[in-house]
Amino acid sequence: MNDVYYMKLALDLARSTKGQTSPNPMVGSVVVKDGAIIGMGAHLRAGEGHAEVQALTMAGEKARGATIYVTLEPCSHYGKTPPCADLIIERGLKRVVVATGDSNPEVAGQGLAKLREAGLEVEFGICQEEANELNEVFFHFMKKQIPFVTLKSATTLDGKTATVTGQSKWITGPEAREDVHRYRHEHDAILVGIGTVLADNPSLTTRLPAGGKNPIRVVLDHTLKIPVNANLVQDQEAPTWILTTDSASQVKQNELTQYGVLVVRLPDLSVETILSFLGTKTVTSVFVEGGSEVNGSFLEARAVNQVITYLAPKLFGGKFAPTAIGGNGFAKVDEALELDVKEVTTIGNDIKVVSRLKGSG
Amino acid sequence: MNDVYYMKLALDLARSTKGQTSPNPMVGSVVVKDGAIIGMGAHLRAGEGHAEVQALTMAGEKARGATIYVTLEPCSHYGKTPPCADLIIERGLKRVVVATGDSNPEVAGQGLAKLREAGLEVEFGICQEEANELNEVFFHFMKKQIPFVTLKSATTLDGKTATVTGQSKWITGPEAREDVHRYRHEHDAILVGIGTVLADNPSLTTRLPAGGKNPIRVVLDHTLKIPVNANLVQDQEAPTWILTTDSASQVKQNELTQYGVLVVRLPDLSVETILSFLGTKTVTSVFVEGGSEVNGSFLEARAVNQVITYLAPKLFGGKFAPTAIGGNGFAKVDEALELDVKEVTTIGNDIKVVSRLKGSG
Repeated sequence: MNDVYYMKLALDLARSTKGQTSPNPMVGSVVVKDGAIIGMGAHLRAGEGHAEVQALTMAGEKARGATIYVTLEPCSHYGKTPPCADLIIERGLKRVVVATGDSNPEVAGQGLAKLREAGLEVEFGICQEEANELNEVFFHFMKKQIPFVTLKSATTLDGKTATVTGQSKWITGPEAREDVHRYRHEHDAILVGIGTVLADNPSLTTRLPAGGKNPIRVVLDHTLKIPVNANLVQDQEAPTWILTTDSASQVKQNELTQYGVLVVRLPDLSVETILSFLGTKTVTSVFVEGGSEVNGSFLEARAVNQVITYLAPKLFGGKFAPTAIGGNGFAKVDEALELDVKEVTTIGNDIKVVSRLKGSG
Repeated sequence: MNDVYYMKLALDLARSTKGQTSPNPMVGSVVVKDGAIIGMGAHLRAGEGHAEVQALTMAGEKARGATIYVTLEPCSHYGKTPPCADLIIERGLKRVVVATGDSNPEVAGQGLAKLREAGLEVEFGICQEEANELNEVFFHFMKKQIPFVTLKSATTLDGKTATVTGQSKWITGPEAREDVHRYRHEHDAILVGIGTVLADNPSLTTRLPAGGKNPIRVVLDHTLKIPVNANLVQDQEAPTWILTTDSASQVKQNELTQYGVLVVRLPDLSVETILSFLGTKTVTSVFVEGGSEVNGSFLEARAVNQVITYLAPKLFGGKFAPTAIGGNGFAKVDEALELDVKEVTTIGNDIKVVSRLKGSG
């Protein structure tokens, strides 16, 4: 029972909220006195209490003289809630242990400074790497103001997303497909090209045994080819944002908006323009589910932070069978997008590879 | 120290000879008396002593009354060496523990029967599955009289074997490339199409830090397009067999054979014809290193027993970038060649997947 032990518990509390705190980070907190846990909490949802508030509420009067563990530096500014640093001081805690700093420039370092000034003992950097990785999406968004991009593909072991005749149901097994729905739950938005909509008429919702949050469904559609009777237009299951350009018909736009769909005209549908737009809408993470051309444009723009690859143990063959990432591709081997493999596992009968942009931690 | 313990040791002895016993199986043997190992051995090379002979030689006179562990049923027929079953009886062993049976119809069951008739105690089936897997190539060849086929591919995580402009050096790292050479060492033959020869002028030899056995180099070349100055023709490093058809020029054939290359005219270069021919030459295993069209023809013929896939953590993209398995491919998802994943590991920075034809154990 040391600092690392309690911080790992706080990290577990934080992690349990994955998918529900955006655009806020996941944060967990534990209050410990005389070797006993007297409070624990996590930030559950944007607009609701911070983790420290939850943990201190549970601790009540006993918090006086205790140690509080927080996975992210306590805030020192008035946001939707009063500053947590002030609360910690008021409640008479003796020691504060923090995993990592807040990359929000309004907050960074100020919370710790305030606590130290008030005479509290402050320990910083316990389980820092783990805490940074947990909130990589939040930190990325804070720094770049564009969403963290995860590209997903599901192929045969020989890299095909369909047979040469276009059959693709199903390549991976039910376990891998359920895993994809978990990612949908965890992302603010899901993004596909109009080709995928026309080919599959997908609903792009989160279908998990215990439910889950639907992502905003973003469709790239230069000329508003999406049929008015598409599931994405009709089903009202989640917001649908159709990104288009000035080449699109105003009449078609009016038809679509009748169903509550948001149609946004952008100067162009370059990956840069799309991500900047999503950033202005506080979309912190986007799950790119293709097709091949959309995946290719994200690759060529080097706008991929994470890649989730499912590989089914089967072979389709075929020189003209489609692959996950199309587009022009890179001409040279040394132009390739380099990744670090973070995780290789089997999932059902399939293989799952999680990789990140090389050097991104 | 029980039967399983000693049999696993015998299996380790057998396994250590991988790549050097073909067309014979790998076999290991341990002789144990009063809880002490008094002999151990393995079959090292076709034409040399069987594992039992080596182990009994080491045991000498002490073998009387001992137990002998053998990974494969002792032979009972006169081959290149006298029957091991006879030797075991002569040397006065008391008990024989055998992992698995010999699929050679000349031998199967007869060795055990002879031992039992002579009054020895015989135990069969200890570590049988492991012993069968160890010699799957040998058993496959005995049963089918055609080589066990391993197809190898090395691609990016998005399934590409080269960029759209054809660059492919290097996709995988040095560790994966060395692993490929280990497979070359372990196979009787390596097989490529003429396209690969013309594109890369490969030597297809085994280049391992500690040396290694070169496989027979088999080239599929319908019309003898192979240049006389190709490494495979000139380097004399290992036998080169060029499989061709009657469309090939006799003049070119004469030129090639001057360099010691074997040119074989077959009725056609279908996978079936090729494998039957190699079977008649006692090639028990073939390592197919493509390219894409050759891989495609092996896939479509469903003549693949094992697939070794190396995946480099990088993305090339490109609708027209080449993939590992070309050809026509299968039209329907349910026609796909189904595999069982046997092993998923990282090797250097790359991922290695070993898979076998589904249901083949």
